Amino acid sequence: MNQRLKNMSEWMNENQIDISIITSTENVFYLSGFYSDPHERLLALALFQQEEPILICPAMETEDAKASGWTYEIIGYSDVENPWEMIRKAIDKRVNKVTKLAIEKEHMNVERYEALTSLFPEAAFVSAEERLRKLRMIKDEKEISKIREACALADYAVEVGCSEIQEGKTELDILAVIEYELKKKGITQMSFATMVLTGTNGASPHGTPGLTKIKKGDFVLFDLGVVVDGYCSDITRTVAYGDISNQQQEIYDTVLKAQLAAIDASKPGAACSNVDLTARNIIRDAGYGDYFPHRLGHGLGIGVHEYPSLTETNSLLLEKGMVYTIEPGIYVPNIAGVRIEDDILVTADGVEVLTKFPKELQMIK
Amino acid sequence: MNQRLKNMSEWMNENQIDISIITSTENVFYLSGFYSDPHERLLALALFQQEEPILICPAMETEDAKASGWTYEIIGYSDVENPWEMIRKAIDKRVNKVTKLAIEKEHMNVERYEALTSLFPEAAFVSAEERLRKLRMIKDEKEISKIREACALADYAVEVGCSEIQEGKTELDILAVIEYELKKKGITQMSFATMVLTGTNGASPHGTPGLTKIKKGDFVLFDLGVVVDGYCSDITRTVAYGDISNQQQEIYDTVLKAQLAAIDASKPGAACSNVDLTARNIIRDAGYGDYFPHRLGHGLGIGVHEYPSLTETNSLLLEKGMVYTIEPGIYVPNIAGVRIEDDILVTADGVEVLTKFPKELQMIK
Repeated sequence: MNQRLKNMSEWMNENQIDISIITSTENVFYLSGFYSDPHERLLALALFQQEEPILICPAMETEDAKASGWTYEIIGYSDVENPWEMIRKAIDKRVNKVTKLAIEKEHMNVERYEALTSLFPEAAFVSAEERLRKLRMIKDEKEISKIREACALADYAVEVGCSEIQEGKTELDILAVIEYELKKKGITQMSFATMVLTGTNGASPHGTPGLTKIKKGDFVLFDLGVVVDGYCSDITRTVAYGDISNQQQEIYDTVLKAQLAAIDASKPGAACSNVDLTARNIIRDAGYGDYFPHRLGHGLGIGVHEYPSLTETNSLLLEKGMVYTIEPGIYVPNIAGVRIEDDILVTADGVEVLTKFPKELQMIK
Repeated sequence: MNQRLKNMSEWMNENQIDISIITSTENVFYLSGFYSDPHERLLALALFQQEEPILICPAMETEDAKASGWTYEIIGYSDVENPWEMIRKAIDKRVNKVTKLAIEKEHMNVERYEALTSLFPEAAFVSAEERLRKLRMIKDEKEISKIREACALADYAVEVGCSEIQEGKTELDILAVIEYELKKKGITQMSFATMVLTGTNGASPHGTPGLTKIKKGDFVLFDLGVVVDGYCSDITRTVAYGDISNQQQEIYDTVLKAQLAAIDASKPGAACSNVDLTARNIIRDAGYGDYFPHRLGHGLGIGVHEYPSLTETNSLLLEKGMVYTIEPGIYVPNIAGVRIEDDILVTADGVEVLTKFPKELQMIK
């Protein structure tokens, strides 16, 4: 068994969990290497304390599952078969009495939960999510190399966006070119809906790109990420088009100072709260505290929001192998919004910044 | 109250359901007019038999909810408040004893379900989904006009795609231009991941667009849809690049014949199964029955897969106001895949085909 599956079995042993039924695309991918989103159809991994795991998927996906490297049992079901019955039979062969089951309570819907509870009416159900979040928090070399690649493509995307800035172009014009150029490189999946916001749109927490035209004196904010082999990047850059006001400059300088200080404060053993507060205090001291309404950052990997969460109250200590964003922002309604975001890898003795697009204010003429 | 809310109250009355808690973005939008996806945060509509409904959303979205036309109570909660407690209090003011609750069992996760069952430990929980699917199945004039607009843009997208076909271009090159041109028209959301497949890729049920290059003698299959004001379109066209073989031509002609016959068979009072079988029998008679492995079509609207479902066993009768796809296909592995899909509106005495891009085989030189 791979180390990830072993970690789960160990946890199940310690907590007397007989079976884990993992059904989210992300966690099935993490544990099995098989990436699949069968929508309303069931995809599941059944894990045991001692016995080998089982993958359950639509019959037409079994070949893909094998091709992805899964060497254990696969139960493929057709549209006229009941996968729950098949799971039950497979479990009966392996486990005598099921008293405790782990599921993803934030992912599994009530319909499936009722199917499971009717198969195991006397079992207690606990959540596997917290355990999986903690396992996924520490990235291995393979994962880091995919994230690195995704970050390089995010840098490229911002570069494309900057080169498209021109009087009269709309946010969507620029967004369209960015995604066009990425598709030409074979990238079909973004980490989330790409944001290109200009003028005061960048100052709204609800900004969605639209037909607003770029004009001189505006900031243009890019927030985007690219998925490479199932792993996400996430970058934000804010650039100036034409001459900006002193206040815009001051806001930018404050965010950049906060961002750099938070990177400096990041290292193994530092508390997440301390990293958040390092940035937050700089912004507060500059008088913009009320305009920085969100946490400093979030882990990323297979998901674009993972552990660790960089908030002012999270006492978790940073460890080698964690990957997270540092993204302070100041949003003054009707004036300007600035956010600067990098993806950070914790190394043995400090951090490596994986996103590399320049952060000194880019002045586009 | 609007007619949709009244329909729900009526159903709750008939079934002695004290409260419905609706939490999916699609159904909240359908019932309230407010479109919001607050991700892990709670969005909910609480509906009653007699009392006015309540909308529950993150505090920062309350203004948007009002702007969308919602005139009833709104409970906005901050990140440090427990929305379930707030719902409980609001419900206590309206209902004495809660014995039966309706929720969306395919949408609600176990975590939320546990929160709700602990608030109402003695209540029975039933599903509201089937009722909502049936209500949403019949579209009103406003909905039809949005779908009509989405269909016109889908036609345009196929036109753009065809004009980009050229030796050596990849599937992703063409996909990139299609979405680029749509974004320039202000469209940011597609109904699902756009498909451009060429050569034998179109013959795989798993085809995803990639770096395969288009070459003479290939079919190019487009399957895409556009979202306009929350409503989806869904079109498929298969076109020929250069000269094709007799077998390719035969496959195309068979699919087209089946598709046209199914449209002819569509009218108020016709059974879904009959429409499916009309197309299926033509494909079977031509010897391709084994290569048409899916249902004939599906309803669409706010969701891209709604009721009615056009299968060979669904005895449901078509009614005025239903909108659905007719999309027969033949997929012969390593030879060719052809699918032709239109969006169909059932009218008082027949149907109207909402997607208009030509269906006689387009030969691109």
